Amino acid sequence: MLRPRCRRPRNLLERSWRILLLELRSQNWIKKLGQRNERWRAAQRYGTRQDFSHNGSFHEAVGAVLVMAQCFCVMPVRGILASTPDGLSFSWHSWRTWYCVGYMCTTVLDTIFTINQVVHGKLDVRNMEPIIFHVSILLASVQFLHLARKWPKLMHQWACVEQGLPKFENWQQREHLARKIHRVTFVLMMLSLTEHLLSIVSAIHFANYCPARKDPIESYFYSSGSQIFFIFPYSAWLAWLGKAQNVLLTFGWSFMDIFVMIIGIGLSELLARHTICLKSHAERDMSEAFWTSTRTQYRLIVELIIEVDEAVSGLIMLSFANNLYFICLQLLKSINKMPSMAHAVYFYFSLSFLLIRSLAVLLYVSAVNERANEPLGLLRLVPAATYNEEVARFGNELAGEEVALSGLRFFSVTRKLVLTVAGTIVTYELVLIQFHEDEKEWHCGTD
Amino acid sequence: MLRPRCRRPRNLLERSWRILLLELRSQNWIKKLGQRNERWRAAQRYGTRQDFSHNGSFHEAVGAVLVMAQCFCVMPVRGILASTPDGLSFSWHSWRTWYCVGYMCTTVLDTIFTINQVVHGKLDVRNMEPIIFHVSILLASVQFLHLARKWPKLMHQWACVEQGLPKFENWQQREHLARKIHRVTFVLMMLSLTEHLLSIVSAIHFANYCPARKDPIESYFYSSGSQIFFIFPYSAWLAWLGKAQNVLLTFGWSFMDIFVMIIGIGLSELLARHTICLKSHAERDMSEAFWTSTRTQYRLIVELIIEVDEAVSGLIMLSFANNLYFICLQLLKSINKMPSMAHAVYFYFSLSFLLIRSLAVLLYVSAVNERANEPLGLLRLVPAATYNEEVARFGNELAGEEVALSGLRFFSVTRKLVLTVAGTIVTYELVLIQFHEDEKEWHCGTD
Amino acid sequence: MLRPRCRRPRNLLERSWRILLLELRSQNWIKKLGQRNERWRAAQRYGTRQDFSHNGSFHEAVGAVLVMAQCFCVMPVRGILASTPDGLSFSWHSWRTWYCVGYMCTTVLDTIFTINQVVHGKLDVRNMEPIIFHVSILLASVQFLHLARKWPKLMHQWACVEQGLPKFENWQQREHLARKIHRVTFVLMMLSLTEHLLSIVSAIHFANYCPARKDPIESYFYSSGSQIFFIFPYSAWLAWLGKAQNVLLTFGWSFMDIFVMIIGIGLSELLARHTICLKSHAERDMSEAFWTSTRTQYRLIVELIIEVDEAVSGLIMLSFANNLYFICLQLLKSINKMPSMAHAVYFYFSLSFLLIRSLAVLLYVSAVNERANEPLGLLRLVPAATYNEEVARFGNELAGEEVALSGLRFFSVTRKLVLTVAGTIVTYELVLIQFHEDEKEWHCGTD
Amino acid sequence: MLRPRCRRPRNLLERSWRILLLELRSQNWIKKLGQRNERWRAAQRYGTRQDFSHNGSFHEAVGAVLVMAQCFCVMPVRGILASTPDGLSFSWHSWRTWYCVGYMCTTVLDTIFTINQVVHGKLDVRNMEPIIFHVSILLASVQFLHLARKWPKLMHQWACVEQGLPKFENWQQREHLARKIHRVTFVLMMLSLTEHLLSIVSAIHFANYCPARKDPIESYFYSSGSQIFFIFPYSAWLAWLGKAQNVLLTFGWSFMDIFVMIIGIGLSELLARHTICLKSHAERDMSEAFWTSTRTQYRLIVELIIEVDEAVSGLIMLSFANNLYFICLQLLKSINKMPSMAHAVYFYFSLSFLLIRSLAVLLYVSAVNERANEPLGLLRLVPAATYNEEVARFGNELAGEEVALSGLRFFSVTRKLVLTVAGTIVTYELVLIQFHEDEKEWHCGTD
Repeated sequence: MLRPRCRRPRNLLERSWRILLLELRSQNWIKKLGQRNERWRAAQRYGTRQDFSHNGSFHEAVGAVLVMAQCFCVMPVRGILASTPDGLSFSWHSWRTWYCVGYMCTTVLDTIFTINQVVHGKLDVRNMEPIIFHVSILLASVQFLHLARKWPKLMHQWACVEQGLPKFENWQQREHLARKIHRVTFVLMMLSLTEHLLSIVSAIHFANYCPARKDPIESYFYSSGSQIFFIFPYSAWLAWLGKAQNVLLTFGWSFMDIFVMIIGIGLSELLARHTICLKSHAERDMSEAFWTSTRTQYRLIVELIIEVDEAVSGLIMLSFANNLYFICLQLLKSINKMPSMAHAVYFYFSLSFLLIRSLAVLLYVSAVNERANEPLGLLRLVPAATYNEEVARFGNELAGEEVALSGLRFFSVTRKLVLTVAGTIVTYELVLIQFHEDEKEWHCGTD
Repeated sequence: MLRPRCRRPRNLLERSWRILLLELRSQNWIKKLGQRNERWRAAQRYGTRQDFSHNGSFHEAVGAVLVMAQCFCVMPVRGILASTPDGLSFSWHSWRTWYCVGYMCTTVLDTIFTINQVVHGKLDVRNMEPIIFHVSILLASVQFLHLARKWPKLMHQWACVEQGLPKFENWQQREHLARKIHRVTFVLMMLSLTEHLLSIVSAIHFANYCPARKDPIESYFYSSGSQIFFIFPYSAWLAWLGKAQNVLLTFGWSFMDIFVMIIGIGLSELLARHTICLKSHAERDMSEAFWTSTRTQYRLIVELIIEVDEAVSGLIMLSFANNLYFICLQLLKSINKMPSMAHAVYFYFSLSFLLIRSLAVLLYVSAVNERANEPLGLLRLVPAATYNEEVARFGNELAGEEVALSGLRFFSVTRKLVLTVAGTIVTYELVLIQFHEDEKEWHCGTD
Repeated sequence: MLRPRCRRPRNLLERSWRILLLELRSQNWIKKLGQRNERWRAAQRYGTRQDFSHNGSFHEAVGAVLVMAQCFCVMPVRGILASTPDGLSFSWHSWRTWYCVGYMCTTVLDTIFTINQVVHGKLDVRNMEPIIFHVSILLASVQFLHLARKWPKLMHQWACVEQGLPKFENWQQREHLARKIHRVTFVLMMLSLTEHLLSIVSAIHFANYCPARKDPIESYFYSSGSQIFFIFPYSAWLAWLGKAQNVLLTFGWSFMDIFVMIIGIGLSELLARHTICLKSHAERDMSEAFWTSTRTQYRLIVELIIEVDEAVSGLIMLSFANNLYFICLQLLKSINKMPSMAHAVYFYFSLSFLLIRSLAVLLYVSAVNERANEPLGLLRLVPAATYNEEVARFGNELAGEEVALSGLRFFSVTRKLVLTVAGTIVTYELVLIQFHEDEKEWHCGTD
Repeated sequence: MLRPRCRRPRNLLERSWRILLLELRSQNWIKKLGQRNERWRAAQRYGTRQDFSHNGSFHEAVGAVLVMAQCFCVMPVRGILASTPDGLSFSWHSWRTWYCVGYMCTTVLDTIFTINQVVHGKLDVRNMEPIIFHVSILLASVQFLHLARKWPKLMHQWACVEQGLPKFENWQQREHLARKIHRVTFVLMMLSLTEHLLSIVSAIHFANYCPARKDPIESYFYSSGSQIFFIFPYSAWLAWLGKAQNVLLTFGWSFMDIFVMIIGIGLSELLARHTICLKSHAERDMSEAFWTSTRTQYRLIVELIIEVDEAVSGLIMLSFANNLYFICLQLLKSINKMPSMAHAVYFYFSLSFLLIRSLAVLLYVSAVNERANEPLGLLRLVPAATYNEEVARFGNELAGEEVALSGLRFFSVTRKLVLTVAGTIVTYELVLIQFHEDEKEWHCGTD
């Protein structure tokens, strides 16, 4: 592997301070709290321009998103708001990790309850839905935990690659990545929230329609946590716990897609910056040394993409399989008559949201492949006079490799995948419809 | 991007005249009318040989087709009959644009009426037909409007590429492109017209068969504009408006395919001219400079294809999806018994027309890819003595890239796509047939 | 195109004799008959070793097969037994052509009768069988007629390529191609004959089982020419004509596949001879001139393959589509109960024959692609010391092109196609089986 | 082909001893027995360190597995425990071969009995199961016999390639291959054994449930050898013979997959060793000679892979087709209600085992392709200063070829195949389910 030389801003002082910290960690909780308090106070002082200006790094851009993720028990890595990736670390002894592992335990319990409930009902491709939902989120949590351990090293490599790229020219460029990531996250979280609220509204309506309990709210809780009350008698605190778990699961389900998108955005941004630099020089009379450095830079980015792919391709696989399954299922349900207007609104909003989110994931992730192919077109514009061995080598390397994120390397995520997936959905749908009986759905007593 | 140096025939006088025009535009309508009148008179004088001779440019060849298109409210770009692409321009304040936007508004209305009617009926894959028809034409109109804005720049680039190619040797060669485009357009428009007339004949026959109104003509209008009379009571002028809208829509539906074909023809002609030149030199003892210029020329064509693809790939996607859907639907209907001979004739003519048109679109568009691969074969015939760095580079570049028009870059249009599409149609058809009930179709009261 | 210099053995004398012949042709039939008579006598004298020795050319090897084909009214080209391809010619005024055109006319008539009969019955994917059978043979006849016109030029080019290849070392090698072609033709013709005889046996048995006429033979003729007797009343000479036509059609159906196989064998033999020569030199210390000539030779073969593909790809498409359709159909029928042992034997023999023949066509045709890729592997063994510009060029050209026969260029025939076709058959079969009703088949009055 | 120079440790003495052996073979059985006895005694003495240390060769690693295989009548090759591949030989006159051929004869008999039984029942895609099971094992036996004949030459070539690779650094590395192969074999054999025992348990339970005979054990034997007792009356020794045959078949069925996996492991290990060596040198300043030798080494491995593929691709095809069929079938059965807990446990264990084993085969075999692509990535890291002609040639060769094991060259086994296979299974499954009637299975009197 190319070993990028990159300035690690660690002087002696810092290093010794770190050693001190490590020694003290296990003993003095109070000191730690004090430090946190200080940091909190520091955050309370008036912001200077420096505070709000971005340095344009991916680490910084993704920080806020990861904070949100940690609130919902995923990605237990420390130092996500640190100024450099060197501040990142993972430890099994952190409260974040404990929090996350605790969540995974309750998810396992919930999954067992769900399987228990489903197995006692009629087995069917549609009744499998809650099991698939639970199991895929459980797997995603495991993947995120695994990723958290690799995250510090990955972000460090990412930062090194960023340092090798040409400098930003103004603050708009610096802000660009962070704004894009925040915008995408915000929009998707809002849509996800709306969908969840609509699901509650329609479920309460449904609870009125065929009440399991007298009180409508109680009835709603009863139906939303039906896998729990299949075993235990109804109790308010169990209902609240079930609801909380349900919210966490729903977030995890959405976050899987959001995270994959963000990774796609980050990597294609790197490639775009590299391409812009190449674009402005391709037709000029550049030296062989320029081409060597350009090629090496590109190689560093590709190495990073391979590393990132190794870390997140499990999540990509999970996200794609999940979306494929739920789209097929929802389309299948779409033939049913809706029992009420509330259901219809919820259903079509939910379906559209699912389709748009899946398409967005595909397009953002495949953008990495699109961006990675752009330099090849530019190399073809290099004038004959300045064409040299290095340009030829760069061209050959580009033509002979496929740079793309993948799903466990079983498939590469390229733009042409969209059509394959669409064709698969249509085929499965046409065949699945034949098993469909209209009467089955939306009756009292079924999910 | 390679910046082709191309002589823009704009002297000072012309430029100042243009500025004058721009200043006067908003005020003196009368002057404008006068100018138009003059042009009209100029057109009335006896034609000289110069008038009827072609210069062989795509801009000129496509002019007449675009005039026809504008009569039917698409492609509102000005100067389509100007002698050079420099005369082209787009403005939101032109009557063409208003005309076009007006048409889009009525289409939106008509689409809403149609959706309203369909939603009140039984939802089914076949009942979706009028909605898909309307929505796809609406999308195509938006695409055409979008394309009209890019058209002047695109045609300018196209003309520059044409100037770089070897000169025509005689008037047959100059005429060739224009004749081909006019022939294709004429044949398809005639077939489309015949199909529409047959549809009227069969519909009137059908109207007789199960009359919605007493008068057969009235009955026909009633059924052809059923989505309008689902809301409003029957009135003669509404019926005529509905019919006019219907004619415009049908034209738009056919024109989408014709336009895509014409673009395919134009681009493959460029590549063919380049290949002919290469063919006559490949086996001779050519200098390195010749190969550099040949490669640069080819590169310019490829750049143009990429630009054109960006502009029209939405239309290609629309046209292909549309044809796929309608072929599946018509084949599905083909199992039904026809109520009368008139229906049978119309139906099988319509189906054959659809199949032939779709195949023609595929073949003409994929010809771009076929033509683009031809130089590679010729390069392999270059004798060892004159083989040099430039030939090697050209060969490598050709072997490593796929030049083709695409459907939103989700798929490339190559000749092998034909089989994929055919296979998809057969598969879907075999599955769809199972949902088919013979009794449903051709009864009074259904479309 | 590379213009291979090849010795055409035509001196002045011969040329003038030819001119003479052309002048005399229209007038003196008697002279011509006399010449034929002489040739006949010459053929009667005792054979010398020279007569029975092969020169190893494809033209010679394929001669006997084409004679057989001409007996069954296909490939009306003259001079197929001439010693060199220069003796080949095509003329519209030859009796062969008239014979062939006559056959096509009767086939058209028969096809119309068949369509007439089928249209009056129940339309169904299985009832289409005789129409598809007739139409595909008709199309094949047209293709063969078209091919006959190109044949002389094609064989001339083929002979030139053969002359460029290394000489044969012994008579076994010279005989090899002819023996292989004759063996394949003989085996397939015998199997085809057996299948036809079995079909007669089972049909006579069937005719006994549900007799249409009193006499069993008459009954058989009646059922085998049912499309004729659907219009005309039964008469013995019509029955014999119908049977003769049926035999010709069946031959045409089999010959299509055989011919495609022979073309595949011929081309892969060329490539194999080139590869053998390369194999013995690849690891030795060869000069650049050797590599230039090797590359040029290979290029000539590829040019020939492209020419041949243009001429026969229509037949390949027809043969593949035909086999695909009939395999699906026969597999579908295989679920039926057979009315008698004779039927069962015939049916399973027929199905096995169809499967084996189709697989053989695929494998022999795809062998062209397999052979064409072999030189690439050998080039990789060239030692570093003798590796030069020409080897690199040859390697690049080989790696960047796909040499294969194709079906109208919609698909290339490679070995991997086998699996695609098999997968398609299984998928279609699984879906088709659902339309199947057991009672339909093998009843009196159906085919 | 590159002719690897490799030290064959055969001195004059050894050679003469061999000649002696050959001469004596046909006559003196007693001497032979004596030698075997000696070897047995030699094996009884205390092991020294030398005995337990591995030399890291594939021949040695695979020895124990082949011994096991020979116990179950496959791979009748002699000398599998010899210290070098030179000790390997195949002879038709060996008792191993006779043993193996005898087994094949009884399998043929058993297959005929099975076909006889199935033909007399109702033909159905599910009833074909025992036929497919028998026929595929029969074909596998033939393949293994064929492979045994090629094995000595193949192992010799393999050993030569191994000698060319860099030396092992310590005994862990030397042991690595053998341990991996033994571990994989052990785990799969244990799972296979468990599955077979579970099948017996569930079958005995089933035999109790609907007893064919009074005694439950007898009942079990009766049902497990039903194809025999369909013809012959029940007798204890026939039952035992049938059971023995059944055990051998079941082993053969599992061993097919295990063997394919082992071949995959062996070849990818070779590539991995080559890559490790390349990895440590790629970024250093290496001479052109180093790259020549690296390229030649890689070429030798590729040649070996091609040879091995030719020998085992029939087995790969068989193993893949078999797994595909049985997965589809078992998934189809999974919808049935299980008659008892024993059946359910057996069924789900069996299905999971089948899925995991198939996936393992795919992943281990596709690892060859994965490993073969790794050097390409490393070549891209070669610094510009040391980049030379040889690196470029190596890079070009790597980029232009696909190194992978294949199924009769109809498909290459790459990681992306997994998804294709999975998609095929889902599609077939969805279509197949429609033929399914729940009542059919698990009734008395059916398999």
